[in-house]
Amino acid sequence: MKDDPDQHLRETTVSRTELLQGNFLHVVRDTVRLPGGGQATREFVLHPGAVMIIALLDDGRVVLERQFRHAMQAVMIEVPAGKVDPGEDRLVCAQRELLEETGYRASEWAFACRLAPTVAYSDEIIDIWFARGLTVGERTLDEGEFLDVIAATPDELNSWCFSGKVIDCKTLIGSMWLQNVLRGEWTLSWQGAEPGSHAGESGA
Amino acid sequence: MKDDPDQHLRETTVSRTELLQGNFLHVVRDTVRLPGGGQATREFVLHPGAVMIIALLDDGRVVLERQFRHAMQAVMIEVPAGKVDPGEDRLVCAQRELLEETGYRASEWAFACRLAPTVAYSDEIIDIWFARGLTVGERTLDEGEFLDVIAATPDELNSWCFSGKVIDCKTLIGSMWLQNVLRGEWTLSWQGAEPGSHAGESGA
Repeated sequence: MKDDPDQHLRETTVSRTELLQGNFLHVVRDTVRLPGGGQATREFVLHPGAVMIIALLDDGRVVLERQFRHAMQAVMIEVPAGKVDPGEDRLVCAQRELLEETGYRASEWAFACRLAPTVAYSDEIIDIWFARGLTVGERTLDEGEFLDVIAATPDELNSWCFSGKVIDCKTLIGSMWLQNVLRGEWTLSWQGAEPGSHAGESGA
Repeated sequence: MKDDPDQHLRETTVSRTELLQGNFLHVVRDTVRLPGGGQATREFVLHPGAVMIIALLDDGRVVLERQFRHAMQAVMIEVPAGKVDPGEDRLVCAQRELLEETGYRASEWAFACRLAPTVAYSDEIIDIWFARGLTVGERTLDEGEFLDVIAATPDELNSWCFSGKVIDCKTLIGSMWLQNVLRGEWTLSWQGAEPGSHAGESGA
């Protein structure tokens, strides 16, 4: 670590205490050694990771969901998204979540990037996928999951990000990606629907 | 609730169980009645809310931080941000966090919008502020807080959002806001540094 240019920032883990293993949330408290030499505790959620999908209809509209989010006590507009199952390929996960929540299958996929929603208290990373060549089938929501599927033009979605009608972080960032792609400023590498060698599989 | 168009989505709270009151994280489990009539549990973090600041130097560069985030096990590039103290005005909070973390004071402020980083398991809402007219003073980091202050041009920051050098959600969304403001597509209402009547105070 002698040559580490970030040594003055880096914390090292001393020990871990399990705080909560709930039905949904797994929370730990780590004791860390600070760069300055002292110790501190860091509490955070252990999360398996997730995917989100910017799914484009043939007419250019984006597939969105309206879902009541208990923590927010509000119906939120969001892109389709979901947690990765243990050992699941990220593209397979994106295809599963899109199908389950919206009924859509896509013939082409592109991995865009990653985002970290809550660096202060969760290790969650969300993989951002684009999907196109959509065909509609039947959705199969999880038990206890209720949501409406809607669609918006990229301009509508962008205006909702400005007005505050959309405040969900992954949907805001999805709109940013879409706007940049449509302007030709950010590029995507499209691939078929078969999982295999793709950027989403390797680490960041 | 008879006339509620979202009745088919809305959950109602039946009861709450305290799961964790940590040093930092407060987690509850609510039992909810589902739109379909059954019950389910929702576990989430109770969060006081936060602010983030897109602080612009006179040469147009954005003030950023490099900070080791234990949950991510990485040094992250982020906009200045922090939690709201109990009863604290959002603008006062933004000014306090900017000063504490970076040493900068700003003569002009503009509330942009809000974002929700983790709608599935936290009630956190982050208020997005712009700041300009910066003068540099002395920073006073919290105990156990270590971070570098850097600056980047809006184009640099935008390219880091594309490349994955920036994955923190609030910083990605900050860059989206900045790009749209610089293009003249999204507008801001600038005000002085005195807290008072501003958009950030009222509920969403």
